[in-house]
Amino acid sequence: MDEFDFINHIKKKHSLPLVGDDCAVVPKDSETELLVTADMLVEEMDFRLEWTTPRILGHKALAVSLSDIAAMGGKPSWALISIGVPRELWNTEFLEEFYEGWHELARIHDVELAGGDVSRTPSSLVIDSTVGGVVASGKAIKRSGASAGDAIYVSGSLGGAAAGLQLLGKGHRYSHDGTSALSSMMLRQLRPQPRLHLADQLQAGALASAMIDISDGISSDLTHLCTASGTGAQIFAEMLPLETGLLDYAGSFDAALEFAIHGGEDFELLFTADPEKISAADLESVTRIGEVTGNPGIIELVRDGGAKTLPAHGHRHF
Amino acid sequence: MDEFDFINHIKKKHSLPLVGDDCAVVPKDSETELLVTADMLVEEMDFRLEWTTPRILGHKALAVSLSDIAAMGGKPSWALISIGVPRELWNTEFLEEFYEGWHELARIHDVELAGGDVSRTPSSLVIDSTVGGVVASGKAIKRSGASAGDAIYVSGSLGGAAAGLQLLGKGHRYSHDGTSALSSMMLRQLRPQPRLHLADQLQAGALASAMIDISDGISSDLTHLCTASGTGAQIFAEMLPLETGLLDYAGSFDAALEFAIHGGEDFELLFTADPEKISAADLESVTRIGEVTGNPGIIELVRDGGAKTLPAHGHRHF
Repeated sequence: MDEFDFINHIKKKHSLPLVGDDCAVVPKDSETELLVTADMLVEEMDFRLEWTTPRILGHKALAVSLSDIAAMGGKPSWALISIGVPRELWNTEFLEEFYEGWHELARIHDVELAGGDVSRTPSSLVIDSTVGGVVASGKAIKRSGASAGDAIYVSGSLGGAAAGLQLLGKGHRYSHDGTSALSSMMLRQLRPQPRLHLADQLQAGALASAMIDISDGISSDLTHLCTASGTGAQIFAEMLPLETGLLDYAGSFDAALEFAIHGGEDFELLFTADPEKISAADLESVTRIGEVTGNPGIIELVRDGGAKTLPAHGHRHF
Repeated sequence: MDEFDFINHIKKKHSLPLVGDDCAVVPKDSETELLVTADMLVEEMDFRLEWTTPRILGHKALAVSLSDIAAMGGKPSWALISIGVPRELWNTEFLEEFYEGWHELARIHDVELAGGDVSRTPSSLVIDSTVGGVVASGKAIKRSGASAGDAIYVSGSLGGAAAGLQLLGKGHRYSHDGTSALSSMMLRQLRPQPRLHLADQLQAGALASAMIDISDGISSDLTHLCTASGTGAQIFAEMLPLETGLLDYAGSFDAALEFAIHGGEDFELLFTADPEKISAADLESVTRIGEVTGNPGIIELVRDGGAKTLPAHGHRHF
């Protein structure tokens, strides 16, 4: 049983209708609903201090939760940070810089830190990031709204964060100018950008039928979306927007595809829509990569005219 | 710098008006406000698995956050649980039982689990509990509302949770019948009860001028309340409602006072009020223990007719 199976099990056992999308949707007022989401980041499991800076880590802690708000078509408004700190990081510049990086991103998206907790851990650093946002009532873009015939789109580019993780693991470090492709890929891993502007356009125009953010990898995240929608999907290998420099770094199209399909943490938006609506809208950096099918749970990768079923090989902790 | 100093520093540096009470108060609709609070519990720091059961730990994880909602006079409605689990606890009965205990308490207070996160840690278990609740607009009971001349009250009894912690540390274990005073004190530590019913009465009757829950110990928590209100306080040693059996266990009134004043985690409500209003209200288990004074920041313990200044010696992590 991995964590997704476990969450499904608890959802069923305790009858938890709010659990299972990128955010929970909770009643707010007559016109809007509240979106809430929480993400835990654990040292050694989800990040390493020697690969990043406290400031960039503060950015990421907020970014991963903002990406969940984006995935429902919402606007973030407040946040809580709970942080468990080992003694050796206390009374150092670490927390100062962490909250500085957090606030740099928060200011851009007009998010206010409302509270949280500061605790101590025996060794590893642990961060739990909670964000609250709003969406017009009944208008949250859920994972469950896709229909056969919808086209599948993704924002930005794919595979950079996973390649960046591999680079960091091999001992590479990003440089602050960030101009090389390798630095860019490492920064995709360390400093993801939540796609809130695109989310806003999709929500305002009622353009997307279903949406999820790519946190675990397309193969996993598209499976979640299709399972929730009761559909299948075909994606076209040649249409995937590979991260700049990924093909060079990976050495072959096959290897680049592995990063793009199974690699997590790109924090791009993956959504389904009527292609005529998307063609008519003026969206930046959106690529059509496939279509929704009527084969529930079957995700196929089409390449050179042939299709093969894609296993959900994205990131999981257990 | 301890964690309270640090939180104050960050609040000032980044201008965070919502930070600093038991919950943040966020706009909701024309009649109500949203209360949100988060509490992190870390294995070895805040609990030990050999002292408790997964089910009781699930209860406590929710109870500590419900107590924060109570401290503002609110009603809880939804919650998030983020849990970081070491591999050795995965695929055991641990999580099943944890969520069972969590839900036993949640059902009593009509709280719905809306989401959260499941992650992995290298070793210790980490839980971050977030609860959202509601309160009538402008009616949240803040720490800052006390005035000189108000009386100070506390719910229930004091010192049991701290004595229970000491007992557990000495190797004692509670028995399920829970009838002995020692078992009761250990259960005060392990399975705190949020005082939501009293909070509701205080809020509905507009009875309390300021309130906080006792999580770190009266000496700390009363200091927080007085600092926020710009007042001081006198508390009367002989009026403190000591936990049943505490005097026997501690061996002297002095030793019992140490548990009652500096011991944390009783999760009782500490509030200030006009004593005529409280006399007129029909409140169960509320004891008048002192009064608010005009000496900002000075907390005095009155005993045998003499007063001495009380240092804030409650629990802190750093």
